[in-house]
Amino acid sequence: MIAGTVLALAGGVGGAKLADGLAALLGGRLGVIVNTGDDFEHMGLSVSPDLDTVMYTLAGIANPETGWGIAGESWAFLDQAARLGGPSWFRLGDRDLATHVLRTERLRRGERLSAITADLCRRLGIAAHVLPMSDDPVRTVVETAEGPLAFQEYFVRRRCEVPVTGFAFAGAAEARPTEEIAAALAAADLAAIVICPSNPFVSVDPILAVPGLRPALRRRGAPIVAVSPIIGGAAVKGPAAKMMRELRLDPSALTVAEHYAGFIDGMLIDEADGSLAPRLEARGLAVRIAPTLMKTQDDRRAVARQALALARAVAARRQVP
Amino acid sequence: MIAGTVLALAGGVGGAKLADGLAALLGGRLGVIVNTGDDFEHMGLSVSPDLDTVMYTLAGIANPETGWGIAGESWAFLDQAARLGGPSWFRLGDRDLATHVLRTERLRRGERLSAITADLCRRLGIAAHVLPMSDDPVRTVVETAEGPLAFQEYFVRRRCEVPVTGFAFAGAAEARPTEEIAAALAAADLAAIVICPSNPFVSVDPILAVPGLRPALRRRGAPIVAVSPIIGGAAVKGPAAKMMRELRLDPSALTVAEHYAGFIDGMLIDEADGSLAPRLEARGLAVRIAPTLMKTQDDRRAVARQALALARAVAARRQVP
Repeated sequence: MIAGTVLALAGGVGGAKLADGLAALLGGRLGVIVNTGDDFEHMGLSVSPDLDTVMYTLAGIANPETGWGIAGESWAFLDQAARLGGPSWFRLGDRDLATHVLRTERLRRGERLSAITADLCRRLGIAAHVLPMSDDPVRTVVETAEGPLAFQEYFVRRRCEVPVTGFAFAGAAEARPTEEIAAALAAADLAAIVICPSNPFVSVDPILAVPGLRPALRRRGAPIVAVSPIIGGAAVKGPAAKMMRELRLDPSALTVAEHYAGFIDGMLIDEADGSLAPRLEARGLAVRIAPTLMKTQDDRRAVARQALALARAVAARRQVP
Repeated sequence: MIAGTVLALAGGVGGAKLADGLAALLGGRLGVIVNTGDDFEHMGLSVSPDLDTVMYTLAGIANPETGWGIAGESWAFLDQAARLGGPSWFRLGDRDLATHVLRTERLRRGERLSAITADLCRRLGIAAHVLPMSDDPVRTVVETAEGPLAFQEYFVRRRCEVPVTGFAFAGAAEARPTEEIAAALAAADLAAIVICPSNPFVSVDPILAVPGLRPALRRRGAPIVAVSPIIGGAAVKGPAAKMMRELRLDPSALTVAEHYAGFIDGMLIDEADGSLAPRLEARGLAVRIAPTLMKTQDDRRAVARQALALARAVAARRQVP
């Protein structure tokens, strides 16, 4: 374990799992900065898929089969909406819809996304602090041979089938970090910053694109460690490895390390990738090798412990004269 | 039966039942002008309770127990919304919600309520024309000893318990009749106008408060007949009789006739009220006596036939030299 507070950076399913493991160890000492670049307006509702995945996962109500949405969800709304000519490509469940309707109303009334999220988390009994990366809209755009696609168009509607050529984060230049994130960063006892095993391009990069956030995290001096989302050349879930191939990058933990070069101090890699350790260490990174697949609740806590142990090791190494 | 087209004026449950009976006889030859004075914004959604009751009833999907909402409805959204701190006093079902979400989005995009309603009705397989009384917002205000109450506050939240002293229709002075209603009124073969057995104060009066609509209906020359919502001194459903008592009026078909004086040509009253016929006729009204309680689908058609027969009798009487 670790003394002090911890900040995690997370996107969707994989990130939410590690955040859940960290929350089980740290409770209210954990803050999770969550990607909002995949937020979008759907049927007039403000939908924040990554924020909701993190929230539902930390609340223990996430659907274990899909990783997104709520366990035991029903679909009466979507059935009827389709009958009335509404879109059905994005699956809005009946319970999930309560989040979107209430959030949309509160945003329209002028409340900040961070404040709404904090209130929803409180009502769901979440002790950890779920922190949207910004209260200002940032929209991830996936650049493809067919032209730019809004993230959910690419991710859900097109099922990541279109080869990517790059990414842009519309609105990022004008987005401001939030007072909640500033307060978490200012905590005197901040002990570690953990980049969850989320997609580097579309989950973590949007967070780091918020002006001032990346340097502020780096400047803070707490060890920054990443958990590789790539295991044995493949992503556990989602298109990270496929994107790397399309960008002519080798899908491996090395590419992830390269991507975060100059930002992270250490990396937790899976046992399957143990042979990569020397090359990561040659890049100046502290490395820890452990099982990183998270199938069970115990796995989540175990990987969280490993990530925190790595952060402690980085801190200890710094103290050696 | 009747040749030509028919216009009905309707509010909620009782009005919807007669509209359904008329629709069974007339199909696309029926237009139903529906009260929108009870529309309101709830959880950021535009809800039109009377419009939806008429729409669901004509589509054959209305909940037969409540008279409002959709048959076989589920409540997962409402449960979760309550858990997240949302209001639960107004019962938004999962399927019903599809109407509100889609309508709200389309209104925000600038579509007219009439056009949206026509499209929803088409998708629900409704042949009759469901015509909101206006595309402009009119809000029924119930005046009480406690001060003015928004209609749904009075009707749902306070369960009609507060004694009424009067009614106002906010926005009515600025509301315009719609092009759809103007077209229905201009039909060369308009044969009858039927005031459904809806609450005169809060279902029919808001419709007649739309500037120009009442004189246009009257000027049109088609027989105007009302079906009394009061049977044997009581309202079949809703607060009409209670309101009459609170306003120091006798709850009876006579009071209904008094209320519509100068506007209607005839009145269909229940067998229970047969003794009132001479006094109604003394007021110059054509009167028809028949069972008017609508328990079954057959009842709806039977009452519709009686209302149309009364309209035919009014027309025939006029042709007598």
